[in-house]
Amino acid sequence: MLTCSIIGATSFTGNELIRLLVRHPHVKIGSLTTRSEEKIDVREQVPSLGKASDLVIEKFNFQKVVRNSDVVFVTLPHTFAMKIAGDFYDEDKVVIDLSADFRLKRADLYEEWYQEKHTRKDLLKRTVYGLPEVYRGQIKQANLIANPGCYPTGSVLGLVPLIKNDLVKRDSIIIDAKSGVSGAGKKLSQATQFSEVDENFGAYKVNRHQHTPEIEQTLSDVALEKIDVTFVPHLLPVHRGILSTIYVRRKAGIKKDKLVKAFEAFSEQEPFVRFLGVGRFPTLRNVQYTNFCDIGIAMDNHSDQVIVITAIDNLLKGASGQAIQNMNIRLGFPEEAGLL
Amino acid sequence: MLTCSIIGATSFTGNELIRLLVRHPHVKIGSLTTRSEEKIDVREQVPSLGKASDLVIEKFNFQKVVRNSDVVFVTLPHTFAMKIAGDFYDEDKVVIDLSADFRLKRADLYEEWYQEKHTRKDLLKRTVYGLPEVYRGQIKQANLIANPGCYPTGSVLGLVPLIKNDLVKRDSIIIDAKSGVSGAGKKLSQATQFSEVDENFGAYKVNRHQHTPEIEQTLSDVALEKIDVTFVPHLLPVHRGILSTIYVRRKAGIKKDKLVKAFEAFSEQEPFVRFLGVGRFPTLRNVQYTNFCDIGIAMDNHSDQVIVITAIDNLLKGASGQAIQNMNIRLGFPEEAGLL
Amino acid sequence: MLTCSIIGATSFTGNELIRLLVRHPHVKIGSLTTRSEEKIDVREQVPSLGKASDLVIEKFNFQKVVRNSDVVFVTLPHTFAMKIAGDFYDEDKVVIDLSADFRLKRADLYEEWYQEKHTRKDLLKRTVYGLPEVYRGQIKQANLIANPGCYPTGSVLGLVPLIKNDLVKRDSIIIDAKSGVSGAGKKLSQATQFSEVDENFGAYKVNRHQHTPEIEQTLSDVALEKIDVTFVPHLLPVHRGILSTIYVRRKAGIKKDKLVKAFEAFSEQEPFVRFLGVGRFPTLRNVQYTNFCDIGIAMDNHSDQVIVITAIDNLLKGASGQAIQNMNIRLGFPEEAGLL
Amino acid sequence: MLTCSIIGATSFTGNELIRLLVRHPHVKIGSLTTRSEEKIDVREQVPSLGKASDLVIEKFNFQKVVRNSDVVFVTLPHTFAMKIAGDFYDEDKVVIDLSADFRLKRADLYEEWYQEKHTRKDLLKRTVYGLPEVYRGQIKQANLIANPGCYPTGSVLGLVPLIKNDLVKRDSIIIDAKSGVSGAGKKLSQATQFSEVDENFGAYKVNRHQHTPEIEQTLSDVALEKIDVTFVPHLLPVHRGILSTIYVRRKAGIKKDKLVKAFEAFSEQEPFVRFLGVGRFPTLRNVQYTNFCDIGIAMDNHSDQVIVITAIDNLLKGASGQAIQNMNIRLGFPEEAGLL
Repeated sequence: MLTCSIIGATSFTGNELIRLLVRHPHVKIGSLTTRSEEKIDVREQVPSLGKASDLVIEKFNFQKVVRNSDVVFVTLPHTFAMKIAGDFYDEDKVVIDLSADFRLKRADLYEEWYQEKHTRKDLLKRTVYGLPEVYRGQIKQANLIANPGCYPTGSVLGLVPLIKNDLVKRDSIIIDAKSGVSGAGKKLSQATQFSEVDENFGAYKVNRHQHTPEIEQTLSDVALEKIDVTFVPHLLPVHRGILSTIYVRRKAGIKKDKLVKAFEAFSEQEPFVRFLGVGRFPTLRNVQYTNFCDIGIAMDNHSDQVIVITAIDNLLKGASGQAIQNMNIRLGFPEEAGLL
Repeated sequence: MLTCSIIGATSFTGNELIRLLVRHPHVKIGSLTTRSEEKIDVREQVPSLGKASDLVIEKFNFQKVVRNSDVVFVTLPHTFAMKIAGDFYDEDKVVIDLSADFRLKRADLYEEWYQEKHTRKDLLKRTVYGLPEVYRGQIKQANLIANPGCYPTGSVLGLVPLIKNDLVKRDSIIIDAKSGVSGAGKKLSQATQFSEVDENFGAYKVNRHQHTPEIEQTLSDVALEKIDVTFVPHLLPVHRGILSTIYVRRKAGIKKDKLVKAFEAFSEQEPFVRFLGVGRFPTLRNVQYTNFCDIGIAMDNHSDQVIVITAIDNLLKGASGQAIQNMNIRLGFPEEAGLL
Repeated sequence: MLTCSIIGATSFTGNELIRLLVRHPHVKIGSLTTRSEEKIDVREQVPSLGKASDLVIEKFNFQKVVRNSDVVFVTLPHTFAMKIAGDFYDEDKVVIDLSADFRLKRADLYEEWYQEKHTRKDLLKRTVYGLPEVYRGQIKQANLIANPGCYPTGSVLGLVPLIKNDLVKRDSIIIDAKSGVSGAGKKLSQATQFSEVDENFGAYKVNRHQHTPEIEQTLSDVALEKIDVTFVPHLLPVHRGILSTIYVRRKAGIKKDKLVKAFEAFSEQEPFVRFLGVGRFPTLRNVQYTNFCDIGIAMDNHSDQVIVITAIDNLLKGASGQAIQNMNIRLGFPEEAGLL
Repeated sequence: MLTCSIIGATSFTGNELIRLLVRHPHVKIGSLTTRSEEKIDVREQVPSLGKASDLVIEKFNFQKVVRNSDVVFVTLPHTFAMKIAGDFYDEDKVVIDLSADFRLKRADLYEEWYQEKHTRKDLLKRTVYGLPEVYRGQIKQANLIANPGCYPTGSVLGLVPLIKNDLVKRDSIIIDAKSGVSGAGKKLSQATQFSEVDENFGAYKVNRHQHTPEIEQTLSDVALEKIDVTFVPHLLPVHRGILSTIYVRRKAGIKKDKLVKAFEAFSEQEPFVRFLGVGRFPTLRNVQYTNFCDIGIAMDNHSDQVIVITAIDNLLKGASGQAIQNMNIRLGFPEEAGLL
C-alpha cells in the first residue's frame, strides 16, 4: 500500500483529504503536518473519524515526510506551497499541490495576479494542470500536479464540450459564479464573519479575481487560441458549493441538438460529470459532499444565447476530491476509488 | 387625512404596507381585508406594532371598503387582483395594484406568460406602470397604478441610465438575478420548505420567468425600440432582497467617464437610487428594510463588457415601499414620506 | 450476503439508510419501496450515489419484499408502520421499525399520546427498544426492533450513566432540547417553510411532545422505578442535529469525580458515545453526518445542579444510523460496520 | 430639543442607537465618536438613513462632546467605558452606559467576573440599573444609568412577576438561554466566523458567563433576599434575538390562575412587555426589530415545574432600545417615544 502525506492538514481542504483518505481502499496516511508546535488530535479536526483513530497532526519535518511518503498533498497558502511542493518534487515524490502556485504556465501572469515573485519557474513546464477531464493523459505521467482552483473547475467543465466541438463564439463568455464561504479557507477575516455573510449576498473582486487567468489558460488550451472571459464571483451564505451560471453565444447554424449531444458525450465518458439535460438545472444540494460536477443547459429561442449552469462542491471536486481523483489517475487506481 | 385600505392584508406585502402606513405622516388606515371569515388581530401579523394597536383584518366587503377608502392597495395573487382592482377603479378610487395583472400593456402577452384570460383589457391603456424613475409624470395623474414586479424593479433601474443615454448595445443584455425567498410569497410550497432552501442555491424558470416581458416592456419604452433580454433568476437562502448582476456591452467609442456620469446624474435626481461608483458593489444587507436601490458598476479593460450590479429589498422597493412611493407621488406628498 | 429492504425509502431517514447501506460491507439492498405508482431513480433522492447506480424505488409489493429480504427497515409515518412492520414480523423477517408505533410498551400510553388505536398490541411484548447502550443484549435476539426517537436518544444517553449509578435525584430532571428541521420529516408544512424557520427560534409542544413518555419509559427501566421528566423541545434554523441541555441534581454526598467516572466508563464501553469531559461541550457540527453521541458536563460549585449536554445527528444516531447499529448487533456484524 | 451623543458609534449598539435617534421626535444627535482617526460617513454604518443625511462619526474629543451634549450614550467595551462614562458624569451629563462597568453594585464581584480593576467605585452607589420594569422610579432621577445586559433583560423579565409575588421557590431557578450572534459585537473572532456558526449550535461559558451575577443581583433586589441561578447560554445561528427558557418550581398551593394573573398584571402596566398566555410561546421573529419582551408560560400538571419563555431583540430591548427607553423615562418623554 502506498503512503500519502498532507502538508497543511488543518485547513478545510486538509481536513477533507484526511476524511477521504482514511476510507481509501488503496492508500494509507503517512504524515499529517502543520506549522504549529503542538500535536493535534485529528479527531478534533475531522469529527467523523472513529473513536479508535490515533492519527495526529504534527509540526512539519521535511526529512520525516520524505522518508514516509510516496505521495505528498500540499494544502498550504500560495507562495508557501511553492517552495515546499518544489522540494518534495526534487525528492522524486508525486506532489499534488492544491495551491495556486503552479497552476499558471506563465510566471509573469502569476506575478501580475498574485503580486508575488515566483521562485520555482523551472518547474512550471513540468507541472501538469490537474483537471482530469482535459489533461487526463498527462496526469498519468506527472510528478507535479497543480490541482485546479474551485472556480476554474466549475467554470471550465461547463465550457469544454462547447469549445472543444467549436459550437460557440469564443469572445462572448460570461461566468457569473456564486460560492459558499468555505472557499475562503479558515483564515480569520471580517468578510467571513457570520454577521457579514448571514442573510447577505454580494459580488466581490468583479473582473479582478485571481482565478480569471486560470480559467482563460485552460479554455485557450482547449480552443487552441486565446480566450478571454468576463468572470464575476459572488459570496453565498452557505458553507459549501459553487454554482456557475455561464452565458455564451452559439455559432451561426448550430442547433440545440448538437449542443445537447456534446454534453451527453462528455458526461458519458467522464465519471464525475453528470449532465442533467435541457431545462433541468443543478443545485448545490445535489453535489455537496460529492465529487460530481452537475451540468444543465438552457437555450433562448429568440436569440443565440446559451446558458450553461454547473454546480460542484468547492471542497471536493473543487479541491480535495479532485486531488484524490488525480492521485487515482496518476497511480493507476480506479478513478472513483475512495470517492463514492 | 386621506384613508388607505389594503385588500389582501395578510400577505408579506400586505404586512409590509401596514407596517409602513401606520408610521406614514399623511394618511391613515381604513380597511384591512382578507378572504377568511375570521377577524385577525394585526399585531399577530405585524409584531412591531405597539401594544395599543386595535387594527383588525376582516373579511373583504366591497361596499365597506368603497365607503372608507381614498386609496386602495391590492396585494392579491394575479387573476384575483384583476377583478377587484378594476371594481375599485370603477368607483373612482386611486388603486395601486401590486399584482401582475395590469403591468403588461399587451393583453396577449399577459395571456401567454400567465396562462390566464385577461378580463379587464379595457383598463390596460389607462393603467400607469408604477416605476417612478421612468413614469413619474404619468403616475401623478393615474388612478390605476400597476406596481412593478420585484425582479423588473432591480433590473430596469440598473439599465435605464445606459439605455436612455444610448450608451450600450441593446441586443446584448443579460440579467443574472438572485432573490430571497419572500419573493415567492407566503403560499405553502415544497420549493420554499426550509430543507429545500437552507444551504442550497440554484436557478429556476431559466429564460421563462414571467417577469421577462415586463422587463422588456419598460426597457423598450425607454429605448423607443424593441429590446429583448436574457433573464435568469436564482433562489437565495435568505429572506429578503434581490441582487441583479447585469451584463451589457458599451457602444463603440463610449468611455468609462460617460457611463459613470449617466449613473451619477440618475442617482442625483432620484431619491431612492444610490450610485456607489465604479468598483464598489451593493449588498443585500445595505438595502434590506429600506426603499433604496443601490447600484455599482465595473468595466472590463480588455473588452466592451459593462457590469452593473443592483440591490433592492424585494418587499420594499420591489413591492410595498414602491407602492407607497407611488401613492406619495400621486397624492402630492413628499416622495420620501413614510419611507425613511 | 444478507439482503435489506426499506419500506418508505423516499423519506429523509429512508434516504439516509440507502446512503449508508450501499457502503455497508456485509449486506446488500433488496427492495426500496414507496406508496407512489411511479418508479423513482434513487440517484435523485441520494445524490451522492455513483453514476452507475441502478437502484430504483418502486411501489410497495408485500410479497416481493418478503421474497427478497432478510431485514426490513420500516420508515413510514406512525400508524402506517404498525400494520406493515407487524406483517413482516409475521413472515419471520428481522424488522427494524423507525416509527413510534412499537416504542411504548403500554398501548394505553401510545393511544393517549398519539391519539390513534393500536392494532398490534400482541407484538408490544416481543418488541425490543433499539437503544444499544441500554438494551444491547435483547437486541441480539429481537425480530422486531423499535428504533428510538431522535429526542429520546439524545436525552437518555446523557442520563443513563447518572441514573444507573444512582448519582442523581430522580425527580429533578429537565431536558431542554433543540432540534434541526429535518426532524419533522419531508412533509409539507407551514411550520417548516423557510420564511418561518430562517433567523427564527422558538419552543413548541412544551410539556406535551409525544417523545416524553418514551424518554420516561427508558429512564424508568434503567432506574427500576418510575421517572417523570420535564421536556421542552425547540426548533433550530439548521437542517440536522439535536442538542439537549439536561439539568439534574446530584444526590447528597456525590462528588464531581464520581460523576466523571460514570461518564468515562460509559464512553469507554460504547462505540458511539464520546465523553468530552468537564467544561467541554458538544456542538452539532461535530456530530453531523456521524453516528456519535457527544457528551459534556458541567457542575455548579454553589449548588447540586449538574448540567449534561449531548449532541447527535437526528438522522443518524437519532434514526438511520442507529437502525444500522441495531442491525449490526442483531446480525452479529461488527457494531461499527458501515457507520464510519 | 435636547442633544444626544454616542461614544462608540460604530458598534452594533451604536449603529442601532443612531437608527433610532434620527427618528426620535424629541431629541437630536450631537456628536458621534469613535477611536479611529478617519471620519466615517454614517450612511455606511446605518444604510437605512436617507440620502440627505450628513451625519459623520469622528474621532473622540471629550471637550467637544461636553459642549454639545445633554445626554451621552456610551457603547464602549467594558473597562473603556468606566473612565469615559465617569468623566461625563462628572460634567453633569445624563450618562447611559451600555457596558457592564456600572451594572454590578459590588466592585468585588465586578473584579471577580470581569478580571479587571474597577477605577470608579465611587460612582457605583449613584448608578441606577436601567431596567425600567424594576427601577423606573429611580431611573427618573439618575444621572448615571447602567443599561442592562442582553441576557439579564430577557431572563429577569420572565421572573419578576413570579418572585415579586412570591409564587416560586427561589432556589430552583434554571435559565437556558439562546442568543443570536450579534450579542458578541463586531469584534473579529474565530467563534463568530460564518463557518463556525452556520448550521451549528452549542453551549458556551456554562455556569461561568459574566451575566450571571447581574441576573442574581436584580432578582435578589426584587426578592429582598439572596438568589442564585443556574445560567447556561447557547449560540444560535441567527443574527438578532435571545430566547430564554426558564425553569422554576411553584410554591406549594400556588395555582395556575395566580401565576397567570401575575403575568397579566405585569404586562398591563409595562409598555414593552407582552404576555402571550399559557401554552402560547414567543419566537425571535416576533420581537426582532422591536423593543418588546414577549413572554409565554407552561405548567406541568404532574409536577410543580413552571416554564417561562421570553424573547427579546438583543440589540433593542437587550441594548439600544432599552437605552432609549431609559432616556425617555429620565427626560420625561413618553416612554414609547421613538421606539414604535
